[in-house]
Amino acid sequence: MTRGGRDESWHHGVAAVVTPEGRRVARLGDPGVATYLRSAAKPFQALSLLEAGGEEAFGLDDADLALTCASHGGTPAHAERVASLLARGGFTQGDLLCGAHPPLDAPAAEALRRAGREPEPLHNNCSGKHAGMLLAAKLLGLPADGYTAPDHPLQRRNRERIARLCGLDPADVPEAVDGCSVPTYRVPVEAAARAWAALADPEAAGLAGAEAAAVRRAIEAMARAPEMVAGPGRFTTRLIQATGGRVIGKEGAEGFYAVAVRGPAALGLALKVADGGERCRDGVVLDLLRLTGCLSAAELAALEDLHRPERRNHRGLAVGRIEPDLLDLELEA
Amino acid sequence: MTRGGRDESWHHGVAAVVTPEGRRVARLGDPGVATYLRSAAKPFQALSLLEAGGEEAFGLDDADLALTCASHGGTPAHAERVASLLARGGFTQGDLLCGAHPPLDAPAAEALRRAGREPEPLHNNCSGKHAGMLLAAKLLGLPADGYTAPDHPLQRRNRERIARLCGLDPADVPEAVDGCSVPTYRVPVEAAARAWAALADPEAAGLAGAEAAAVRRAIEAMARAPEMVAGPGRFTTRLIQATGGRVIGKEGAEGFYAVAVRGPAALGLALKVADGGERCRDGVVLDLLRLTGCLSAAELAALEDLHRPERRNHRGLAVGRIEPDLLDLELEA
Repeated sequence: MTRGGRDESWHHGVAAVVTPEGRRVARLGDPGVATYLRSAAKPFQALSLLEAGGEEAFGLDDADLALTCASHGGTPAHAERVASLLARGGFTQGDLLCGAHPPLDAPAAEALRRAGREPEPLHNNCSGKHAGMLLAAKLLGLPADGYTAPDHPLQRRNRERIARLCGLDPADVPEAVDGCSVPTYRVPVEAAARAWAALADPEAAGLAGAEAAAVRRAIEAMARAPEMVAGPGRFTTRLIQATGGRVIGKEGAEGFYAVAVRGPAALGLALKVADGGERCRDGVVLDLLRLTGCLSAAELAALEDLHRPERRNHRGLAVGRIEPDLLDLELEA
Repeated sequence: MTRGGRDESWHHGVAAVVTPEGRRVARLGDPGVATYLRSAAKPFQALSLLEAGGEEAFGLDDADLALTCASHGGTPAHAERVASLLARGGFTQGDLLCGAHPPLDAPAAEALRRAGREPEPLHNNCSGKHAGMLLAAKLLGLPADGYTAPDHPLQRRNRERIARLCGLDPADVPEAVDGCSVPTYRVPVEAAARAWAALADPEAAGLAGAEAAAVRRAIEAMARAPEMVAGPGRFTTRLIQATGGRVIGKEGAEGFYAVAVRGPAALGLALKVADGGERCRDGVVLDLLRLTGCLSAAELAALEDLHRPERRNHRGLAVGRIEPDLLDLELEA
């Protein structure tokens, strides 16, 4: 962070870029540091619904599936679609255990305030994931009550899957309570990158059958409905849009970010901003993708305003910039 | 930052504790790192008004003077008093060049929103400082227009004074544009601690005459009117209240904090949270004051809820804590 052309504050972080086979391509700092996946776990948490045949059973389209993997903005389009997902399983908003917070989308939050309405669970950025979990429970004949508990069969299944795709024993994956009250998983940053590489190319990562098909379907839905994965103007939505769905990103709380780069040279990337800050995250992700050759010049140009964003003060005067500085990046031969 | 009893995110910082004579008592990290003082410069920026006889000329009481040193909450009590300060110099809100932002005080911000009112410059946390600058300009026969410009005589005087109290040559003090559009000054963290030690005991720091008297008056006003320095429930207000005005703290943006510990063993403290984050700042300041013997057990007990605050999620479940960790603190013999 600069002010008047000089440093004012400093963010540090760790990152890893790996292939689906688990070979490390680049690292920043010590990617053995462990932290919580938070919302970067969502695509994995959506797979049980797809594996169980949820797409056909509930008539789910790309936008529906993308929303089950989303940290959405709580716009009317998001909230209404979550309500529709719930209804298809005979559920209502009252079944959601995610809690409520104002919509992440600023105009949607402002509209809600002006209407004198309180935020509802539908507006919670995780409500699509929770709706997906309720549908999966229904389809699998599991109880909907207490679907967020760590010992609910759905959550036990999520933990087993995430550990396996990270290349870890589930016993080595501590869990804690996420912002939306489901379990969240603590894994080394490099292990998270490996799991995301499996999203980019499931077969190369050793997945097969219904699980590989579910991964392909979830990622394809995110690629085709980027506005459902985050929201208007958000980095994740713009990254997916700018790359035509070739590169799928997903934010997690506390400065976490993960990316699946699809194609013949598939890669997974994970970044943790140590202090949990979000303001430098997008620029660093873009620089990591640039330096590992994952973005074309045209794609970078379309995202340039997010690369080194300007900081302005209360009178709108330009006072500094957020500048990515990846001098410590080590590219492997 | 912990979640489920394990680390999730990590903040780093540098700090120094020094005597008014400039002797270092303790340090955390490298206190030679330079950054901007931001709002921790406010008590120094208020001294020209006092030196020029502003207290008598405009009939300023403790609350008025404290407000000229404040990052206030923009409550009606704050905003109305700033309007009164302006009026005493024949100024209006239209003369303020600080820009507008919603009140820092959450209930005040909510009340403004519910009334359908936009934030005004009076609500800006810096409006008291700006009002003080306008009054000083008036008293000194300086132009009010452009009072925020770096080459305005008032700002040149502020820069000279801050550099001197930091033990630096003004030529070695870069300046940039602050959030409220006045100049802000970039100094090593240890130099900032030294300047704050001069606020704690101006004579011991070598100040004399009108300048020493102005320092004593400004600090005494902050001690007597802590609710004007920040606002209800804010750390700065509570620190001053809990110590009966013996310990005067002041936050700056981007994770900066400074403290003047008054009394026979006067000290100055400055802390920069490297990433500019604020959530860990209060607990670390309390721990620094505790470990350097600056707070009694009773004072610490009164502030205990700010020391290791709990983190709760959207459903109100306890998920972790913010834990100060000052293992790197070095106390000098």
